[in-house]
Amino acid sequence: MTDHIQYSPEHDALILLDQRYLPTREEWFVCKNVKDVCEALVVMVVRGAPAIGVTAAYGCYLAAREVQHAAPAVDSWRETLSAKLEEIATARPTAVNLRWAVKLMRGVWERRPDIDLEGLCKIWLEKAKQVHAEDLATCRAIGASGAGLIADGDTVLTHCNAGALATAGYGTALAPIRAAVEQGKHVSVIADETRPFLQGARLTAYELHRDGIPVKVACDNACALLMQRGLVQKVIVGADRIAANGDAANKIGTFGVAILAHEFGVPFYVAAPVSTIDPETADGSLIPIEERPAREVTHVGTTQITPDGVDVFNFAFDVTPARLISGIITEKGVLTAPYTEAIAKLFK
Amino acid sequence: MTDHIQYSPEHDALILLDQRYLPTREEWFVCKNVKDVCEALVVMVVRGAPAIGVTAAYGCYLAAREVQHAAPAVDSWRETLSAKLEEIATARPTAVNLRWAVKLMRGVWERRPDIDLEGLCKIWLEKAKQVHAEDLATCRAIGASGAGLIADGDTVLTHCNAGALATAGYGTALAPIRAAVEQGKHVSVIADETRPFLQGARLTAYELHRDGIPVKVACDNACALLMQRGLVQKVIVGADRIAANGDAANKIGTFGVAILAHEFGVPFYVAAPVSTIDPETADGSLIPIEERPAREVTHVGTTQITPDGVDVFNFAFDVTPARLISGIITEKGVLTAPYTEAIAKLFK
Repeated sequence: MTDHIQYSPEHDALILLDQRYLPTREEWFVCKNVKDVCEALVVMVVRGAPAIGVTAAYGCYLAAREVQHAAPAVDSWRETLSAKLEEIATARPTAVNLRWAVKLMRGVWERRPDIDLEGLCKIWLEKAKQVHAEDLATCRAIGASGAGLIADGDTVLTHCNAGALATAGYGTALAPIRAAVEQGKHVSVIADETRPFLQGARLTAYELHRDGIPVKVACDNACALLMQRGLVQKVIVGADRIAANGDAANKIGTFGVAILAHEFGVPFYVAAPVSTIDPETADGSLIPIEERPAREVTHVGTTQITPDGVDVFNFAFDVTPARLISGIITEKGVLTAPYTEAIAKLFK
Repeated sequence: MTDHIQYSPEHDALILLDQRYLPTREEWFVCKNVKDVCEALVVMVVRGAPAIGVTAAYGCYLAAREVQHAAPAVDSWRETLSAKLEEIATARPTAVNLRWAVKLMRGVWERRPDIDLEGLCKIWLEKAKQVHAEDLATCRAIGASGAGLIADGDTVLTHCNAGALATAGYGTALAPIRAAVEQGKHVSVIADETRPFLQGARLTAYELHRDGIPVKVACDNACALLMQRGLVQKVIVGADRIAANGDAANKIGTFGVAILAHEFGVPFYVAAPVSTIDPETADGSLIPIEERPAREVTHVGTTQITPDGVDVFNFAFDVTPARLISGIITEKGVLTAPYTEAIAKLFK
């Protein structure tokens, strides 16, 4: 699945599969200007760090086109455009890839200080397409690295959605699964539903089912029983940040799955691009854990599931210690323990 | 909280707090006849093995009253009543306490073969009240047994609802917490939301909040992080069946919590009446695990969370091995390992 982020030359627009309505409705969200792009980011039409980066890159192009259409005075377009880029960069506070993408696009512009708006539109559209293609290539390389870890007949459990929908396509955690299937292996997936936001039930199940890869959804609760019954051969999850020692932050619940996998002798892999590894963060205890709004826990859709006046926990992430990780699958190969050495070598 | 199952002399009816609408609406379901009682059982106005037993006992009384009101021929009332009892006993296929309660009431009748309908109504109402009171007394005794395990300042995590709402009142897993609070200890509770049926979020949170015991709800996913942060001092859960070796079947997810508790050195207790222990079941592998309808997983309220055409797992229970259980809290005291000996001694 690689069509959920599309640039349409016909409409000169960015067209996004609206993830808010998945898995029950496939609606497309059309971005023609900065306001559209920021709305798509804020309301989570699109989510997942790499997918956000690709969206922001196209957003910079749309910003330039918008300014051009407004037919500005010759002198002021640079400031107007710069302000619009800042709007995109700050659309979501914690999304590092947003700022990364805008900085990258700004860099392209800064290297051509004399370029006019039409010229900038042209090189930015090419750059956005390149960011898009490179992310897809990275995902495919992660797939190639990890496919060999999956045996014919395996059932792989994954948590949250580190799939095509979180990237330009193909995914990170789902990439080795897709690659193994392309090699002709029979692979089934168990998608943890992943409360509270249900990315597993809604998104992972949707994209794998659409792509014809067998998938079943399980409540997060079922993990121990499924492993006890021998229904899980491998676990592969994504990561939001990996520390220099291999500790990996990912969606809340990942840590628990890792402990259970260890208990039952099931290999537990983290799949992520090298850009997710932060060699400046010594270990997982230094990774801040975001707390998100209570409503994600207290309500599912419009249904209230907790009593009024009762408080909830809503930590969005947890950190899986390196000792529980069988390997870190990257586009540069599979890192194994000792991770401190493996990661240092990668960044040398 | 002991008022959710009430016999009302004024209305000559059984009045049940309708658990389907908790935690957002407090509605009462009035049972005046066998049809009402069976509906309450089938649609889960009331659930939890002991609560079902108490409901069925009152149901037998209401059956007799209904037959009396129908002013039957002198000879046929026994058969009519017997058929109604059978209706109650089979209202839910797997609820052992339903059949236990009906058998108990039948026994009372069989010991008085010459009794007339009015006389039977009278002794059955007394017997139902006795079943009700005895269940409450058992719960209080479980509380007294377990209160000493909870220290002032503890936060206790529980899974599912083994509380007042699952019993005549006071609960099993929640009983030691309530007793410790009555002793003046400051105790907080973390209620796992307990997907898919959300008994923790909906019921445990409701009854503790109503009774003024501090409670926070956490997604089942959060357990490892909460324990890692030292936010959980004890785990206490209920049980659906306990084998002769101490293996305990309980709501899906309990087994995972037990493994995490072991990993983090958090004591893990099971609280249940002695009647839950089945000395005929040698170990947990012999306890059948019920699979329930997919819709409990695929939908929350009216919101569909999985794609059409994607299958789900919905095992309702799992079995926690005795080696992970720090103690079994019963009305006869706290059993500790080796459980095979402790349980054999109890039943001698």
